[in-house]
Amino acid sequence: MSFERDNIHKMAGYTYGEQPSDDSVVKLNTNENPYPPGPAVQSALAEFKVESLRRYPPALANEFRTAAAELHNVGVENIIATRGGDELLRLLFTTFADLGDIIAVTEPTYSLYPVLAQIQGAEVLSVPLAHDWNLPQDFAETANNANAKMTFVVNPHAPSGTLITTETIRRLAIELNSILLVDEAYVDFISPERQYGCLDLVRDHENVIFLRSLSKGYGLAGIRFGYGIGHATLIEPMLTKTRDSYNLDAISQQLATAAILDQTYAKQTWALVRASRRDLHKALQQRGFDVLPSESNFLLATTPDSGPSAEALYIGLKAQNVFVRFFNVVGMDDKLRITVGTDDENAALLAALDHLSDG
Amino acid sequence: MSFERDNIHKMAGYTYGEQPSDDSVVKLNTNENPYPPGPAVQSALAEFKVESLRRYPPALANEFRTAAAELHNVGVENIIATRGGDELLRLLFTTFADLGDIIAVTEPTYSLYPVLAQIQGAEVLSVPLAHDWNLPQDFAETANNANAKMTFVVNPHAPSGTLITTETIRRLAIELNSILLVDEAYVDFISPERQYGCLDLVRDHENVIFLRSLSKGYGLAGIRFGYGIGHATLIEPMLTKTRDSYNLDAISQQLATAAILDQTYAKQTWALVRASRRDLHKALQQRGFDVLPSESNFLLATTPDSGPSAEALYIGLKAQNVFVRFFNVVGMDDKLRITVGTDDENAALLAALDHLSDG
Repeated sequence: MSFERDNIHKMAGYTYGEQPSDDSVVKLNTNENPYPPGPAVQSALAEFKVESLRRYPPALANEFRTAAAELHNVGVENIIATRGGDELLRLLFTTFADLGDIIAVTEPTYSLYPVLAQIQGAEVLSVPLAHDWNLPQDFAETANNANAKMTFVVNPHAPSGTLITTETIRRLAIELNSILLVDEAYVDFISPERQYGCLDLVRDHENVIFLRSLSKGYGLAGIRFGYGIGHATLIEPMLTKTRDSYNLDAISQQLATAAILDQTYAKQTWALVRASRRDLHKALQQRGFDVLPSESNFLLATTPDSGPSAEALYIGLKAQNVFVRFFNVVGMDDKLRITVGTDDENAALLAALDHLSDG
Repeated sequence: MSFERDNIHKMAGYTYGEQPSDDSVVKLNTNENPYPPGPAVQSALAEFKVESLRRYPPALANEFRTAAAELHNVGVENIIATRGGDELLRLLFTTFADLGDIIAVTEPTYSLYPVLAQIQGAEVLSVPLAHDWNLPQDFAETANNANAKMTFVVNPHAPSGTLITTETIRRLAIELNSILLVDEAYVDFISPERQYGCLDLVRDHENVIFLRSLSKGYGLAGIRFGYGIGHATLIEPMLTKTRDSYNLDAISQQLATAAILDQTYAKQTWALVRASRRDLHKALQQRGFDVLPSESNFLLATTPDSGPSAEALYIGLKAQNVFVRFFNVVGMDDKLRITVGTDDENAALLAALDHLSDG
């Protein structure tokens, strides 16, 4: 006998990247920041009083919300703090998606979206990206014609690293009848020259919400902290009704606040990642990989026709203690997604790749 | 225009106890442990390496699960670690409750259950407790006749502190056709003489799951950590399908594991709370309150007919910086729920009460 709901019984869970416990692994498979959190976060942790843990944490994480609102020049009512970006995504489904509602996404996209849709009993409309990994021109029209309740775009896109421009996001916000979720988990790695930024949309567009995460940009995947920046009418029901009442522990609230207040340190790490990204891109191209221009902290690299398959490389790298991500699905099975590491880590990856093509 | 689902639009959120930021408050309103976490937790926090936070935390919290399984003499497959007990409750709804499914609860009960039911679109069957706050004899029959999908009992009961015996829980497990969730958030404060304990039920009863929390017994409300102990077929879908993929941050996993491994310290605090509970119970009785025997870390006290109303006392105490819980609902509005504090805090409460009855 099973007590599970039918949709849960039928579904498979989210498949996440391997998390080896061995610290010596060159871990370029789950897009973590190669740099640790900065001195401000270190101080916040050192100064945290263990005695205070006997009390419940601030329920709404208002100190963090205030800091985030100032950073992004929006109101506190536009911010919700969540247990990683994943909690925000779940809350969007819980709050806005009824049984059978359509959620429009691109194909490929973040593989968690369809999992959350299955849990909620919502339907996914997958719209294939154009050959250059850009949104099809009629994306908004397609979502509207399907009567989509929510539309999710990842920007910069995962797993390609491609950036949708500010102007395209603005047009989507206006054209879509649905909620528009722009998943900006990797936004911090965009080159400043691209002049990307459209958070001001949340003031006037009641359908717009952005996802941010401290996992990547701030080197804090371990504390599980993200946030939403959205129109107040989207934020309010998640904040006051569907969110678990104390969703964020006291320590992570302190560390997250310290992290976003120290923009100087964060920006240094982003610049380092961009420089390493450029070098790794070149080095992979020199080895015959077809590498997409990436505005994120990872590269999507198509393996050379002549050499071992992507799966063989993935396995061969793992045997040398270098972890990258391989997606065994149509359209992706000739590619590796490689997180940009430190220069030492990237050198270790390249050496391991060279070892495989020599062999 | 609102994008909210109808059931979310119509509902009100969970109303939680006040969390004043002022440390000087005598805070006896949300059942926190009056004692801080012990030296093992303090060491775990001091030794935590901030650098490790750039990586994702262990996805399943297996180190904690292993420690909890050993502590309770069950298998690791019987344990799921959650972001407070609240996340476990939410996961039960998400995983097992379809639209319109019946959830049987007692009346009164933990006020979060109906909120979670509303979010999921499930229906609540509230079965009034007997006058002595015990379960009615035909509770299982009532739930079965309603075709309940899940049945929730809090033991020791909140807000009364009354204990359902081991034998009654065993009978419920056998008689109920539904899932039986025994919410044991306050279990650590039960007098050992009561010989309560029925976790072995999870081996053979595929409908049984217990909720545990580190918020109360371990003085760790601030880290938001709880767990479920249940039959493996109930644990598995929550662990692998409906749980957010990284639901627990790295620091809280370390602290929670350290806390449950140090049973010596924990048991000392429980004994202190029980001693203070006995003294506070007597002192309130001496002041004319009708106080229920409590196996929890709080007392439910009915105000004397002759004096100020419960609401007036609640307000009058708050004006003196002493916070207790007042529920402004039928059947509860002549009562205060008072968390057992340290002896100093309890003395401050009593002095503040005496000041009100003098005035």
